[in-house]
Amino acid sequence: MKAEIIAVGTEILLGEIVNTNAQTVAQLLARLGITAQYQTVVGDNPQRLTEVITTAEQRSQVIFLIGGLGPTPDDLTKQTLATHLQIKLAQDPQAVAKLVAWHQQKQQPMPANNLAQAEYLAGGEPLTNEIGLAVGSYLKTEAHAYFILPGPPREFGPMLRQQVQPRLSQLLGRQQVIVSEMARFFGIGESLMAEQLQDLIATQTNPTLATYLKHFEVGVRITAAAESQAAAEALIAPVLQEVKRRLAPYYVGLGEERTLPEEVLTLLRRRQATVTAAESLTGGAFQALLTGLAGASNVFPGGWVTYANQVKAQLLGIDPQLIATAGVVSAPVAQAMAEQARQLLDTDFALGFTGVAGPDSLEGQPVGTTFIGLAERDRPTQVIECHFAGVRNEIRQRAALSGFKLLYDRLQQ
Amino acid sequence: MKAEIIAVGTEILLGEIVNTNAQTVAQLLARLGITAQYQTVVGDNPQRLTEVITTAEQRSQVIFLIGGLGPTPDDLTKQTLATHLQIKLAQDPQAVAKLVAWHQQKQQPMPANNLAQAEYLAGGEPLTNEIGLAVGSYLKTEAHAYFILPGPPREFGPMLRQQVQPRLSQLLGRQQVIVSEMARFFGIGESLMAEQLQDLIATQTNPTLATYLKHFEVGVRITAAAESQAAAEALIAPVLQEVKRRLAPYYVGLGEERTLPEEVLTLLRRRQATVTAAESLTGGAFQALLTGLAGASNVFPGGWVTYANQVKAQLLGIDPQLIATAGVVSAPVAQAMAEQARQLLDTDFALGFTGVAGPDSLEGQPVGTTFIGLAERDRPTQVIECHFAGVRNEIRQRAALSGFKLLYDRLQQ
Repeated sequence: MKAEIIAVGTEILLGEIVNTNAQTVAQLLARLGITAQYQTVVGDNPQRLTEVITTAEQRSQVIFLIGGLGPTPDDLTKQTLATHLQIKLAQDPQAVAKLVAWHQQKQQPMPANNLAQAEYLAGGEPLTNEIGLAVGSYLKTEAHAYFILPGPPREFGPMLRQQVQPRLSQLLGRQQVIVSEMARFFGIGESLMAEQLQDLIATQTNPTLATYLKHFEVGVRITAAAESQAAAEALIAPVLQEVKRRLAPYYVGLGEERTLPEEVLTLLRRRQATVTAAESLTGGAFQALLTGLAGASNVFPGGWVTYANQVKAQLLGIDPQLIATAGVVSAPVAQAMAEQARQLLDTDFALGFTGVAGPDSLEGQPVGTTFIGLAERDRPTQVIECHFAGVRNEIRQRAALSGFKLLYDRLQQ
Repeated sequence: MKAEIIAVGTEILLGEIVNTNAQTVAQLLARLGITAQYQTVVGDNPQRLTEVITTAEQRSQVIFLIGGLGPTPDDLTKQTLATHLQIKLAQDPQAVAKLVAWHQQKQQPMPANNLAQAEYLAGGEPLTNEIGLAVGSYLKTEAHAYFILPGPPREFGPMLRQQVQPRLSQLLGRQQVIVSEMARFFGIGESLMAEQLQDLIATQTNPTLATYLKHFEVGVRITAAAESQAAAEALIAPVLQEVKRRLAPYYVGLGEERTLPEEVLTLLRRRQATVTAAESLTGGAFQALLTGLAGASNVFPGGWVTYANQVKAQLLGIDPQLIATAGVVSAPVAQAMAEQARQLLDTDFALGFTGVAGPDSLEGQPVGTTFIGLAERDRPTQVIECHFAGVRNEIRQRAALSGFKLLYDRLQQ
């Protein structure tokens, strides 16, 4: 069985966006052992798209069409394939209801052309889009299987895993089950990780190992094929254990979709513990990451962004003398920020962040220097010193996430 | 003149790498006004590559072949095109000398197959590779121009600028200059914007208009081709003026690389004014966006994330009775948050954010409902009510950026 990928979008042809979706599909196909010999990008043009589809049909059985499902008149992917196959489009009632609700929430009338987003190829199945409004479409004909998916990666990614993967396995008609587990690590670079796992990556064939970089975390995906879920999991378990053993100090959990802040939120909720923060260089990034998660209000009452020195004194009661003697980017200031913040809101934990985000150095401290304090009720405060590389926002993100890692490690104890 | 891009590499088909080279070429073509209707990826397979080249020759005059120039036996791009065109390969003496020197430096004998990297299409020109060892190749036939370039982006990028761009300009045979200007807007959807500019987008040929979505802002890029920079700018000016006139309430500045928070920071610095914020639903996102910008410390002393109601009372002094009567998601609470925050840090401006980020509704208010207060020294406080659609983090980002827009509009007055 051969598959090929057609991305539809003038924005790719103009170089405005890079075609990461093709990579995501290609990785899935490779994992499933499906041969993919071609990728094509074509604009939102029915004639050229039809030609490209026709060529693909001559050489592949599974055809992916990605992009061009939006509400604007140049979004024509579904319509073009329907015309080409001489079938009709049908409306998915669930997707229609979602469109109506979305416009109600915005308190705006729904333009009629928006309904096109709820359409799928008649005789096939709609593919639910959990994130966005454009429904996908799956159609199996005698000779071909067509998957139509929306272009935005955050919609497209989950649909690929939840909607496409099981249908591909079914098409493959094997009893084989493909199971993946992702172990996630923070604070180690991808190349250093690959080096530490080199022998496993090079020699393992089932399961296979591959490394990934996402949101400053690095992941190791371990993928096994077997006759059952249990058999695949049994193949994965010892390799996963070995990977975790080698990279133990950096481990932050399992699961492709989870993130370090989510792990911390889960651990805090489990303990019914609370946390606050006083942020200087991170400027609210730690709190924004935490409150970006549903359920944050259970563990986080609030906190401070204390950017200027006098605000550290005014709002947190940091002794200006301490800042003058130790320097604002110092372990004692990080400790005092954490301790004062914890005391003021009477939380179980508190983090204090001070450092140099750049572009300029501060008080002689080079860009990237960061001190993070972790205060805990009835325990001594811990302060770590970090030196981050990268530009301003990389440093800020790494610093905020290092605060989560510090708390994660504490919550494991 | 039409161009198309063929990337050659099994590693792209397997999803191991993403095809960023196609984007880099596409951007260059777009800037030069050369139409690119197709991108293709094909493996290191002479037969399939020949088919793809043949198809490309039928629809485009300029053909890019990227990748497959290395020393291993599966690197066959140059050989395949030579065979297809029935011409020979020639050796570039400079590239041969570089290969010899490289191996001498490493004190290793040079395997004979390494010399393939020094080959180019006979009758054409070698394209110097400053970074790597594989030379590129340029060939102009009666009907087509072929560019063969190495795959590694750090080799490929400089070659594109130094070797390819001048040859493309020569092919175009014009003295033409391409100039673009991007006008940015916030608070209007891309489809509504496209609707309001529909006649301009449809009828304009020089300059052309295109809409873009980036970081919740929508942009209109106006691109003109003319004999000089000044002439191109003169073509753009009246169209830009008309676009700004139609979308005036949403305008937030010019420039592809800038963002709304940057515009606000610039305006605040120009006035030597300061701002603080008290954030509930946005949870630090406003302050994190602001402090993400270098120079934020000049305008921002610090602020609060007041998530829980009792923290709004404790840290900002919001009357619990007000929250009880008006509800926490209300105009009076947004107003009080802004006013109290401004007073406490004695800033020129302050923003207060309260709303429902979801996933659950709050106090009977639906997800997306948001009140933003803007307090200013010696002026009455303004409060806006918004209803944002989307998931939790979209709502939070839109709310934070709407705070920037509110302040942007005030700073224009």
